[in-house]
Amino acid sequence: MENHQEIAGILLRYHRFLIATHVMPDGDAVGSMLGLGLGLQKKGRRVTMTCPGGVPENLRFIPGSDQIVAADDIQSSEYDVVVVLDSSDLGRIEGVYERLSPGIPIVNIDHHSTNKGYGTYNYVDSSSAATGEQVYKILISINVRVDPSIAICLFTAIATDTGFFRFSNTTPTTLRIAARLVERGAEPSVISEQVYEARSLENLKMLGRVLDTLQMDKTGKIAWMEVYGNRMSELSLDEGQTEGFVNYARMVKGVEVALIFRESADGKIRVGMRSKGEFDVGALAETLGGGGHARAAGCSLDSQSISEAKELVFGKVYEIMGLAGD
Amino acid sequence: MENHQEIAGILLRYHRFLIATHVMPDGDAVGSMLGLGLGLQKKGRRVTMTCPGGVPENLRFIPGSDQIVAADDIQSSEYDVVVVLDSSDLGRIEGVYERLSPGIPIVNIDHHSTNKGYGTYNYVDSSSAATGEQVYKILISINVRVDPSIAICLFTAIATDTGFFRFSNTTPTTLRIAARLVERGAEPSVISEQVYEARSLENLKMLGRVLDTLQMDKTGKIAWMEVYGNRMSELSLDEGQTEGFVNYARMVKGVEVALIFRESADGKIRVGMRSKGEFDVGALAETLGGGGHARAAGCSLDSQSISEAKELVFGKVYEIMGLAGD
Repeated sequence: MENHQEIAGILLRYHRFLIATHVMPDGDAVGSMLGLGLGLQKKGRRVTMTCPGGVPENLRFIPGSDQIVAADDIQSSEYDVVVVLDSSDLGRIEGVYERLSPGIPIVNIDHHSTNKGYGTYNYVDSSSAATGEQVYKILISINVRVDPSIAICLFTAIATDTGFFRFSNTTPTTLRIAARLVERGAEPSVISEQVYEARSLENLKMLGRVLDTLQMDKTGKIAWMEVYGNRMSELSLDEGQTEGFVNYARMVKGVEVALIFRESADGKIRVGMRSKGEFDVGALAETLGGGGHARAAGCSLDSQSISEAKELVFGKVYEIMGLAGD
Repeated sequence: MENHQEIAGILLRYHRFLIATHVMPDGDAVGSMLGLGLGLQKKGRRVTMTCPGGVPENLRFIPGSDQIVAADDIQSSEYDVVVVLDSSDLGRIEGVYERLSPGIPIVNIDHHSTNKGYGTYNYVDSSSAATGEQVYKILISINVRVDPSIAICLFTAIATDTGFFRFSNTTPTTLRIAARLVERGAEPSVISEQVYEARSLENLKMLGRVLDTLQMDKTGKIAWMEVYGNRMSELSLDEGQTEGFVNYARMVKGVEVALIFRESADGKIRVGMRSKGEFDVGALAETLGGGGHARAAGCSLDSQSISEAKELVFGKVYEIMGLAGD
């Protein structure tokens, strides 16, 4: 396992880089990839950047986004090294990995504690709030001057992975790096607007309809919402656009477990889970064949209806809480 | 006009303090008052803290909140000095100001650029994101060790007034002070949950219904929502609980002006305004007899109906934008 200084030294040995990040990339994936890519370009390196499936629209404001290419454009023989960012295993860069020359060195940079250590070199630091924090340290080690473009990339990475410094992964170091990036030209309000304030009218109306289904159980500890397929199709939305809605159920005072039940196109019922306080939704999801973390998890159920799924999940929650369900 | 070191020296001259903040206090008002109050207590000072109308429930977790007294409990003869926090004029501490002995020295600490300078001593710094930042500097100047309680007070003050470091008032200094406060024991995730995740089920259901009224004009630059009195009473809510809903209209992609029209108990139509980009809603509100800042403002109209109010406000917006309204 390497530290940021060692990785910095290793990176400088190479000249032709492929940098890749995971499918359905979030702000940390795109921001840390572009931050590292632009930084290496300043050191005279040739850099190709890619992520399977492309960059979501609300992240395309990040400087350098137009340089990101599709997996199809990758010519395996053109790179000396591949850097994989923010990805706990190589399956996360599916479509890219298959195109690499066998034996090409892999540099694995990630902050997920579940990282498999698949790299030739591995810099995995689960105390970092974001991969963007690790990239910042690398760039400082190789004496790249952080310009406004790089500052925007890395601030976006860090701010999005900490929910704008609201999540428990926010450390004093996170905030100090953020301070430096603002000094270097990142504007928090502009970044926040770009990432979060480019929603469609339909998406917000859907949130309205889903909020109208919000309910609380008789113990006051479980709040849930329901999403029916026909309501989504009325607004020409797919399931993906209800992502994050479950957080609203968590906002109800006194609630410990927040759930969203969604009818899915494949006939299954998908359950999104969030928690507050002691309750571990990761453990709950596991008993139901899903996965995740203590505060955010999910599973997919073969139930025929939302009400069937509810019965199953509520039973488990009451069991874990040591409460009678009746 | 004094700076933080001078104010620190002036404060230490006194022994019996009354600290007051504004009516309908927000996180910065309560957090900066408690941070200063607990800090002065550590220096052996006798401190009474008050705010007209009391502390909202979601801020009562802030350490020392139980020490805050009602205006009725203030005995004017018992204080050597009154410190007024986060209040641009003395009208903001109505009910408290009237009880003070004539001639009592007033220390005015605030970050609003509109502050009237009403104090005997004035430390007004509009470059501070929050009054909590100013209090932090004062406490450092008087060598108060920031303990976890004070850290929670001041982090809450700063985080709430910057929308968790998302607003344009967030500076490198803001983030560095936040880093120190996390080091001293403030936990961002716990504070965020306390402030933002103690909403009532009814409030969130109301948000759902209001979102269902979301519309966009034909230019795509104005989005608005409507709140009818009867819908609020169905859910036993008052107007105050729709505060902040207008921000959702601002999240629509491409929108520059976000509006919420609310039927008010006094028969008027209240208009909340937010902007993105160049549009100055403060100037818009002023032409309609209201007030505010470039990004957030409001007014109260004598219109008989929401549709009448809409016509008036949209006309002004199109005029300012240089667009034909038709």
